[in-house]
Amino acid sequence: MVTASTHPPVCVLGLGLIGGSLLRAVVRQGRRAFGYNRSEAGVAAARDDGFDADTDLAAVLARAADSDALIVIAVPVTTLDDLLPVIAATAPDCLLTDVVSVKGPVADAVARLHPTARYIGGHPMAGTSQSGWAATDPDLFNDAMWMVTTEDDTDPDDWRAVAELALDCGAQVVPAANDAHDRAVAAISHLPHLTANATAAVGAGESALALRLAAGSFRDGTRVAGTAPALQQAMLEANQIALLNTLSETIDRLVAARDALRDTGSVAVIVDDGHRARLAYEQVASAPAPAIADVDPGAPGWAQELRRQAHLGHTWQR
Amino acid sequence: MVTASTHPPVCVLGLGLIGGSLLRAVVRQGRRAFGYNRSEAGVAAARDDGFDADTDLAAVLARAADSDALIVIAVPVTTLDDLLPVIAATAPDCLLTDVVSVKGPVADAVARLHPTARYIGGHPMAGTSQSGWAATDPDLFNDAMWMVTTEDDTDPDDWRAVAELALDCGAQVVPAANDAHDRAVAAISHLPHLTANATAAVGAGESALALRLAAGSFRDGTRVAGTAPALQQAMLEANQIALLNTLSETIDRLVAARDALRDTGSVAVIVDDGHRARLAYEQVASAPAPAIADVDPGAPGWAQELRRQAHLGHTWQR
Repeated sequence: MVTASTHPPVCVLGLGLIGGSLLRAVVRQGRRAFGYNRSEAGVAAARDDGFDADTDLAAVLARAADSDALIVIAVPVTTLDDLLPVIAATAPDCLLTDVVSVKGPVADAVARLHPTARYIGGHPMAGTSQSGWAATDPDLFNDAMWMVTTEDDTDPDDWRAVAELALDCGAQVVPAANDAHDRAVAAISHLPHLTANATAAVGAGESALALRLAAGSFRDGTRVAGTAPALQQAMLEANQIALLNTLSETIDRLVAARDALRDTGSVAVIVDDGHRARLAYEQVASAPAPAIADVDPGAPGWAQELRRQAHLGHTWQR
Repeated sequence: MVTASTHPPVCVLGLGLIGGSLLRAVVRQGRRAFGYNRSEAGVAAARDDGFDADTDLAAVLARAADSDALIVIAVPVTTLDDLLPVIAATAPDCLLTDVVSVKGPVADAVARLHPTARYIGGHPMAGTSQSGWAATDPDLFNDAMWMVTTEDDTDPDDWRAVAELALDCGAQVVPAANDAHDRAVAAISHLPHLTANATAAVGAGESALALRLAAGSFRDGTRVAGTAPALQQAMLEANQIALLNTLSETIDRLVAARDALRDTGSVAVIVDDGHRARLAYEQVASAPAPAIADVDPGAPGWAQELRRQAHLGHTWQR
């Protein structure tokens, strides 16, 4: 049994909402942890709250190398090309994970810029429309789902270490292959951003009267349009192909609904399909996830079996 | 100054979420009130909670006529054709209002089936995805916006009486013409139902893994797809023309976003437009609405002036 004191330290690169909350969560759990942030303001805010943070990337990575830390990349996907060569040069042997949403492009960047990396991707399904250190919260990941890359060639010890990090943050682990993950988040995270943005724009374009009358359906349906545009763009554009597919399906459904409403006066199909889907989601979300059982990472076929159980909705739990 | 004891009694027809909550709210305010509901179960539930309710429509309307009650129609728009002739026959002189979302079709039905009615339309912007008496809540309308029909030929005394009802429920009154209201709610209420349903269907169609990974953006963005399909259909289909317009604009925006994402890899336009719109909404929603000032219903041009101030985002308040 690994205990907090024998866990490797955690080095968090990027102290925004996700990275900063992660730093808070693992420190509360008793793990040693330190962080890097590009902006002086972010570092000052973290230090004011008692955390170990620095703007000197090379120095932070040298510490990570010295202490064999688990490095967590928590910067926007658009800045990976600058960051990865520094990691490869300064802390090449450290286990590396990330919390950067879309997994395919991160894995590609790591393969290109740090090909010898011990890299296991990750993606905590948590967030708010706020950003920056001021929005960080050690409870952000409580009971959240945290995808951890689980491919046939994944190293089982490294997988365990990254899964342990997610569990230390209070999350449950969802093992998945990168491409399956990216298709899934296109459907349940990136598409909802596009529909929220379109709905907000149409609503606000109508009149001041419309915004005054706006109530729960508009408030909740457009909430994620409040996320900083640069963050939305980076996340959505990194998942171009999968998002194009789900967006096209959405357009097809809305066009069919428009034609039916125009020609027959009915919205029965879209409402029935949507309602049934929402009930299916509520059923999944309302009950505790069953725990993945009888899998020992490293045993023959372990990765495949983890993915199989995850596809049934089970999670890796503490 | 009209006080609770001099207000006319309130007769609520339909004790679902909106009608039942209205009954609870006005009774708490000290007004006499009684209700009709078609189902025995709804009436029994209301009576168990100490309210005056009955399944005998003719008897309830006879009481309304005897006590010169303000009648509130709170049934689905699809049942108006059965209800209005009974009102016209049994309580023809009572002031009549409704809480039935889309205003054009209700006004048309009243003109057709109860042409001598003293009718002033209304629409409280409140609701949840729940329905039925069990979901009723006297606080449902607190600080909600409550549209009251304000046309050039609206009777000012009747207008005041319906506005008073909204204020008694804790709401603020938004004076508007029926067609402007119907366009506005197509944009900020009915369209969000369609996008929520489409988003839910696409998300749930991907895989069980996707629903397991679904977090805040999917949860909030699909919430109203949980509303009972019959209620959604009745509300959306009654606003066919205005909804077709906003739906077409939404499709155009999503198609443009798809083309841009495919051809240039960018979602900048839809994200920037949506984010700006969401900020505009948050600004409207976060500050108290200014009170409509210096309008005396009945004075020359009063209805026009109420609408003018409402279009600036001001409301009629107690």
